[in-house]
Amino acid sequence: MKTKLIASVLILSIAISGCQTKSVDYSRDDEGSKSVPNVIIIFADDLGYGDLSCYGHPTIITPQLDKMAFEGQKWTNFYVAASVCTPSRAGLLTGRYPLRSGMCSDKNRVLFPNSVGGIPEKEITLAEQLKKGGYVTAAIGKWHLGHQKKFLPINNGFDSYFGIPYSNDMDYNRPEGVSKHETFWNAKPEYFNVPLLMNEDEIERPANQNTLTKRYNEAAIKFIKENKEHPFFLYLAHSLPHVPLFAAEEHLGKSKRGLFGDVVQEIDYGVGQIIETLKETGLDKNTLVVFTSDNGPWLWYEDHGGSAGLLHDGKGTTWEGGMRVPAIFWWPGKIKPAVIDEMGSTLDLFNVCSKLANLDLPEDRIMDGFDLCPVLFDLEQSPRKNMFYYRGTTIYAARQGAYKLHYITETWYTKDDNKIIHENPLLFNVEVDPSEKYNIADQFPEVVKSIDNMVKQHKAEVIQVKDQLAERTKDKQ
Amino acid sequence: MKTKLIASVLILSIAISGCQTKSVDYSRDDEGSKSVPNVIIIFADDLGYGDLSCYGHPTIITPQLDKMAFEGQKWTNFYVAASVCTPSRAGLLTGRYPLRSGMCSDKNRVLFPNSVGGIPEKEITLAEQLKKGGYVTAAIGKWHLGHQKKFLPINNGFDSYFGIPYSNDMDYNRPEGVSKHETFWNAKPEYFNVPLLMNEDEIERPANQNTLTKRYNEAAIKFIKENKEHPFFLYLAHSLPHVPLFAAEEHLGKSKRGLFGDVVQEIDYGVGQIIETLKETGLDKNTLVVFTSDNGPWLWYEDHGGSAGLLHDGKGTTWEGGMRVPAIFWWPGKIKPAVIDEMGSTLDLFNVCSKLANLDLPEDRIMDGFDLCPVLFDLEQSPRKNMFYYRGTTIYAARQGAYKLHYITETWYTKDDNKIIHENPLLFNVEVDPSEKYNIADQFPEVVKSIDNMVKQHKAEVIQVKDQLAERTKDKQ
Repeated sequence: MKTKLIASVLILSIAISGCQTKSVDYSRDDEGSKSVPNVIIIFADDLGYGDLSCYGHPTIITPQLDKMAFEGQKWTNFYVAASVCTPSRAGLLTGRYPLRSGMCSDKNRVLFPNSVGGIPEKEITLAEQLKKGGYVTAAIGKWHLGHQKKFLPINNGFDSYFGIPYSNDMDYNRPEGVSKHETFWNAKPEYFNVPLLMNEDEIERPANQNTLTKRYNEAAIKFIKENKEHPFFLYLAHSLPHVPLFAAEEHLGKSKRGLFGDVVQEIDYGVGQIIETLKETGLDKNTLVVFTSDNGPWLWYEDHGGSAGLLHDGKGTTWEGGMRVPAIFWWPGKIKPAVIDEMGSTLDLFNVCSKLANLDLPEDRIMDGFDLCPVLFDLEQSPRKNMFYYRGTTIYAARQGAYKLHYITETWYTKDDNKIIHENPLLFNVEVDPSEKYNIADQFPEVVKSIDNMVKQHKAEVIQVKDQLAERTKDKQ
Repeated sequence: MKTKLIASVLILSIAISGCQTKSVDYSRDDEGSKSVPNVIIIFADDLGYGDLSCYGHPTIITPQLDKMAFEGQKWTNFYVAASVCTPSRAGLLTGRYPLRSGMCSDKNRVLFPNSVGGIPEKEITLAEQLKKGGYVTAAIGKWHLGHQKKFLPINNGFDSYFGIPYSNDMDYNRPEGVSKHETFWNAKPEYFNVPLLMNEDEIERPANQNTLTKRYNEAAIKFIKENKEHPFFLYLAHSLPHVPLFAAEEHLGKSKRGLFGDVVQEIDYGVGQIIETLKETGLDKNTLVVFTSDNGPWLWYEDHGGSAGLLHDGKGTTWEGGMRVPAIFWWPGKIKPAVIDEMGSTLDLFNVCSKLANLDLPEDRIMDGFDLCPVLFDLEQSPRKNMFYYRGTTIYAARQGAYKLHYITETWYTKDDNKIIHENPLLFNVEVDPSEKYNIADQFPEVVKSIDNMVKQHKAEVIQVKDQLAERTKDKQ
């Protein structure tokens, strides 16, 4: 399996080098580093703002990420483009709100195994962009942007792919006599008939989820070692800690937080291995590593879901707990170590990476990212001053500077699930009041008006496209 | 004022050196350090578990404490002996639950300016203990263990004192026409007629609280510099971020969290100055610095109160948010850097310091502390396996290992203030479920029974003493 992966990476990197659209200087700089940096994005699934020890968790101990955070930048106002999986990933990889690509929907919140759609061909993924700059690209882990052949990573800018095409709780395959609670809280890989893919081929089904995190990390390290000489982009999207939870045997029972903690600590361990590999190969001098999560914690799953720390609510909602996530940037000697309370978003990674790779941004479409480099390298103010909080295709809330206005609030899969349309929208200063406790709309009518205008302007610029999530076949799930 | 402080410290340190009860070797070790370490305890007031950036706060940025935490140990299961000021401080300084000294009460939660009592003479404070080992001792900041002459620091083991005798919101002196809200949210020093003491003398009234944190830090640094040659114990108990909030001009408007953030960031700045002083003088090699807080955040004060992060409720309660606090131990080269999810308490500091100073513990009384040195220096398991959560003289809850049993729950000064006596006590696994969401009493009757037995045994060993907080004169407040 691994040999196959290496082979395809090698073949593809040769193929790429012959079809460059933009010339890239591979020459090494004075320090012997490559002239454009490598990029590694490590993306956890359903990991909440409060789930790492460097973000205050008391019993999930993550020394590797804590060290990365201390040596690099720990961002505390960093957002995803949506509070569920598919649209959040679309946002990261396209640098555009998912509504622009049709990768969010009011009918289905994410793609399912019987979904027909996926990421449209005309979208430029971050991998496609970086390939223009001569990068070797690999996707490892969960995809969830369409499992039909044309939507797979390998057909969307990635030279290679190893992972599961959608969430690890899909292809639900519960045996008779096993309760739903048991299926999740005492999960076995065979309860979920999820396929494991190598490029386009199914190589294991059901995927043995016990060893998935471990195998992802091994594949990541192999990829790094084999691509020392080329600029590379590695997108390592862990399937976990999304339920059902699994960890390799050597990590079980290690965290006082229980299985959820074991799972996160295994991810942390893998991050340490990757950092170590970068140091061993000298690539630490020329590699940006970003660690973040696709959305907040899935609170419905109680102790098998995570924690948003002091933030309100979790996954699936447009409260801060749903959309503000841990985000750590690491590149020793380049990134100025600090805790950053400026705004940033996964939407900005397309822009940041393009800047680092000396690539122009696409000019034929609206891009929603900002260049965070002035913050990363010079501790300047962030150019990002606003954020729109979509649920499906609807703007539920918007932030402008310190202020956030909620038009609609809705919890998700919690006992008091409800949707409230606020005739008088709620206003919070989320810098002073990060837990969104004190509605101050009455005191700041001019702020309400200003955000309202911003939302109207944003809406006017959105071009409706085909909903990629709406259509599903009548197959199981 | 400062000259006076120096003078008294010098005079007293000469006096002490002539009245040693136990001989201490002042000789220097191989590295030129003193043979017993200095101890600095920095104690914040009403700072919650979630109020530092290293504990996850998004807009209170505390680089100095973050660095201390990274270089030393950040404890995440560290408790105070009570969730309000007076009993919490009594617990720290005596190493005993406050019920044993009469420093908690069901009549008054803390001492007030018209209170008659204070810390009993027969109690041995940590300062008195360390003086037996030849330490020069100083208390700087808020005392709150009795403001009658005999209760003051100077008569309880401290060679010198500079600070306010009780909380900074006492001696309430609101002018006509100023609302209560205004008094606190737009506070001026003159609204609170709190005296500032030097040893036993009132030197300023009302204390200019705007510059109090700054002056405490200056006094602390002066004390350190002047006592390079002696082992010293510095108890720096900041009056803030207890309401009303004040910060020196140069710190105002610096935090996105608002005034509360400014205040905490000023404390952080001072911590940095102290660490810098230790490094400059070479004392960093021989000084244990502990930073912690007296109880959780005072939630009633909304944005002028703090945050307990993912923990439930705050100050005044026996939920985790009331009694679990940030705790950072720093002593480079000695303390093994780590995040510690073992249990510890301010009750243990008496024991830790005695151990470091080669002093025997008192044997004529029950001590409630444990020796945390095996954790600090060798990353071993903590000897502390339990904690009793008192409110006044009553045990509301108790923790044994991962499990916490609530007999009574009660919020304090929140809108839904209430007291619930649980006929069927609530059981939480606070390691797996730190936010105390999921009552599992039904599933673990044997754990309920075990904790119940532990509580009964503890109660049987408590000797009732005079309530020091009950009596108040009829003066104002």
